[in-house]
Amino acid sequence: MEPTTFVLFGATGDLAKRKIYPALYNLFVDGKLPQSFSLVGLGRREWTDESFRANVEQSLRQFSRREANDAELVKRFVDAFRYCVLDIGRKEDYQKLLRLIEQREEALGAPPNRMFYLSVGPEFFEPIAANIQDSGLGSAQGWKRLVIEKPFGHDLPSARDLNLKLSKAFDEQEIFRIDHYLGKPMVQKLGSLQQANPVIQALWTNRYIANVQITANETVGVEERAGYYDHIGAVRDMFQNHLLQLLMMAAIHLPHDSTSEKVRFKKKKIMEALEPVQKQEVGASVIRGQYEAGTVQGKPVVGYTSEPGIAPDSMNDTFIAARLLIEDSYWRGVPFYIRTGKRLAEKSTRIVVEFKEPIKAASETSEEGATPNLLIFEIGPNEGITLQLNTKDLEHEGEFKPVHIDIDLLGGQDNVPEAYENLIFDALRGDSTFFAHWDEVELSWQWVQPLLDAFEENLIPLHSYAAGSYGPAESDALLAQDGYHWWFDVKPEQQIQNREGEPYAYNANH
Amino acid sequence: MEPTTFVLFGATGDLAKRKIYPALYNLFVDGKLPQSFSLVGLGRREWTDESFRANVEQSLRQFSRREANDAELVKRFVDAFRYCVLDIGRKEDYQKLLRLIEQREEALGAPPNRMFYLSVGPEFFEPIAANIQDSGLGSAQGWKRLVIEKPFGHDLPSARDLNLKLSKAFDEQEIFRIDHYLGKPMVQKLGSLQQANPVIQALWTNRYIANVQITANETVGVEERAGYYDHIGAVRDMFQNHLLQLLMMAAIHLPHDSTSEKVRFKKKKIMEALEPVQKQEVGASVIRGQYEAGTVQGKPVVGYTSEPGIAPDSMNDTFIAARLLIEDSYWRGVPFYIRTGKRLAEKSTRIVVEFKEPIKAASETSEEGATPNLLIFEIGPNEGITLQLNTKDLEHEGEFKPVHIDIDLLGGQDNVPEAYENLIFDALRGDSTFFAHWDEVELSWQWVQPLLDAFEENLIPLHSYAAGSYGPAESDALLAQDGYHWWFDVKPEQQIQNREGEPYAYNANH
Repeated sequence: MEPTTFVLFGATGDLAKRKIYPALYNLFVDGKLPQSFSLVGLGRREWTDESFRANVEQSLRQFSRREANDAELVKRFVDAFRYCVLDIGRKEDYQKLLRLIEQREEALGAPPNRMFYLSVGPEFFEPIAANIQDSGLGSAQGWKRLVIEKPFGHDLPSARDLNLKLSKAFDEQEIFRIDHYLGKPMVQKLGSLQQANPVIQALWTNRYIANVQITANETVGVEERAGYYDHIGAVRDMFQNHLLQLLMMAAIHLPHDSTSEKVRFKKKKIMEALEPVQKQEVGASVIRGQYEAGTVQGKPVVGYTSEPGIAPDSMNDTFIAARLLIEDSYWRGVPFYIRTGKRLAEKSTRIVVEFKEPIKAASETSEEGATPNLLIFEIGPNEGITLQLNTKDLEHEGEFKPVHIDIDLLGGQDNVPEAYENLIFDALRGDSTFFAHWDEVELSWQWVQPLLDAFEENLIPLHSYAAGSYGPAESDALLAQDGYHWWFDVKPEQQIQNREGEPYAYNANH
Repeated sequence: MEPTTFVLFGATGDLAKRKIYPALYNLFVDGKLPQSFSLVGLGRREWTDESFRANVEQSLRQFSRREANDAELVKRFVDAFRYCVLDIGRKEDYQKLLRLIEQREEALGAPPNRMFYLSVGPEFFEPIAANIQDSGLGSAQGWKRLVIEKPFGHDLPSARDLNLKLSKAFDEQEIFRIDHYLGKPMVQKLGSLQQANPVIQALWTNRYIANVQITANETVGVEERAGYYDHIGAVRDMFQNHLLQLLMMAAIHLPHDSTSEKVRFKKKKIMEALEPVQKQEVGASVIRGQYEAGTVQGKPVVGYTSEPGIAPDSMNDTFIAARLLIEDSYWRGVPFYIRTGKRLAEKSTRIVVEFKEPIKAASETSEEGATPNLLIFEIGPNEGITLQLNTKDLEHEGEFKPVHIDIDLLGGQDNVPEAYENLIFDALRGDSTFFAHWDEVELSWQWVQPLLDAFEENLIPLHSYAAGSYGPAESDALLAQDGYHWWFDVKPEQQIQNREGEPYAYNANH
């Protein structure tokens, strides 16, 4: 890895504390930082190098995956850290920053390779990028990279506008757009599992797959983000970015000699093949919902419009379910059902691949108890892959019952890198495989825009759902009309009896 | 289930004691015997009903899967048992037997349904069947069934001769030929696993499968059976019956509305599609071997010809490996490798399905560490199904490594019925699915006959192998010439280091 100066905007912020410093420290411990590595933290607060380092050390103790109790090691790590007060709007501050960076590079004998990590609100992306450009922070003697996080725009026009502005300072290949779902170990394995296993490759088509279900359910409400969330909603917050990225990663057929470019080309092709939905027809394939008061994991909670900071007449979506179709030769006719929402029954990010049942069609009699074969990717909070097959029921002659096979992809390895470690490591070495390309972002907004318009114009109903449920009944109906159902939803009235009686992890509500 | 009189020839023998009484008792405890059930034990010894029952009770305590310590329950079970002294050659004794059976049926008000179980040497099959016929033990008012075990003949002509003789007394559908491998739970699941699971069904063809390996390795030598075994050899003892049955069960594509007739029709089709081997060409696809002195599981053992009771110049085969081809549309081009032998490194009955590797052909670079996908059926001494896939190696960037997924087909059920329970239960209710049809037996002998002839005429070499190895090196070469190797053979020099270092159950010697 090449020598790098890591220039962190928002160094005093919460994301830096919780995610970025711990990730860097873990990379350091694992020997995955460049030999010559320097970090410059930027913020408005009047911190010194010492107070900055003390704050970083505190964050490691609190949030690091690896214990940070070796004082010697921690000292070696934070020795590379400098702090610089910076007002994002003040051009002089960028000159001061440039001098500090050059001074560090000279001291380390390092070329001017600079990674600008923008851990700040999206309204600062453009001014920072412009100031980097204007101040000459990018040097022709080295490389520069820009790392930013969501949200990338608020809708299609604003995203295009933002991209245009950023592109004045950074080329597309210099921009690393973090979607932290792409950093999750299970998501990174999605494509390669199919690529490396002929038995899965063989099955990865509409010939054998009936439907794909992508779920990202949360139990939390709006928490402290009420004012922000009420202008965003589930579509912008989760669907346009994370869930469409999961769809791309589930649907992808990786080439054998897969490169970053090829992965992103394939993802773009999937987005281009997504059947667009017209604003007037959004209601046929999209369900929006908003939670009412209810009980989440035993605790009574208020409805969305009673949350502090939410307008009492808010029409904001806290839930969305959609049916998408990919019009290519692999996936034609296979619905991809996607849903996400707040205040649902359980926290779970999961992809379920349901296979077709040639059996059922052929005979109704001889396979009693047989359920569809499933391949289940648990992405969070737990990780795992499970295959559901049928076996003869030894206790009921002539019947079948489902068995669950847990695929231990870690092979005994625990304490694996977290999303931010994977992503920062990749950005440091310039591997953009698991970052969102502008094409993907633009195509995602393009697909989502008719939904936003339909919501805005109130063309489709806002269904209510009780907090602690799995969303509005219409979400179930969306699948039922195709003859399917969401897998592994445990209805409240079933929760107790099934969890006791089942010998396996899931409650297949079949 | 219909009222049945179970007429057991060889009631004082070892098989009855170890297998048949415990199996019947377990069926009794599980409520799987007919409501009206009567057993008549036959033997030359001068036992009484009481001494017979005492012997049965003793066998239950010693060999039953379920504990036989409920005196009340055991008494209810053995109350149905009667003993009758019988000399197989004495016609008068059959008249006595008939009177006893009729008396029992009258007492129980049961119709004359009689199941004749021949737990005796094969030389007695024909005289017993003839005497049953002559004595009128088969009654038109009920059904009669004949249950026999291997060996069914010594070669093709003798098997045909035996079948002809039996068929004078019993119709084919009245004859239940036990191959106890067909009673093993995992073997019974082989066909239905594919039948009930579209994801396996999809893969069960030469499009995705590279080869199938069927292994039945033993660590024991000839034990007390030297005189018998030296005239039999591995081909007759294991290959012609058990291993060809495993081949049929692995290769079968069960129809959705599978019946006993359809299963046996499919098995016959597979045997008919087996490419025959000519006597002069046996050497190209068959390896025969005989063990020399060596070390089995740490203990030094003598070579075959030094075993007590074995001729010092014996040319008998204690090992056989063969490559078979099934010429049908499913399996054309997929070699089935079969091997069995005595005094090998480990006791293991197993089927390994090796899938093709489209990856490797396409690229040599990007999937380092990737191994073929495997589906492994452990039949004995342990039971289980394991899927071997590849996953990204988290510790070695860009490489893959195999993971093993254990498929728990029991779904939490333990203490499952043993082979003899399954088979006796099926015979009692007249289900012949898991019994060898004459067609299968005849076609098996037909395929094997050229091997027997070639051995007899010494047309192919008798390779020696060290006791405690995996057979002669020529067995490995048989696969190597096709580019494959036997999976999971742990060479002596690897045994220690691999068993320590591996995070998973198998040592893939790749």
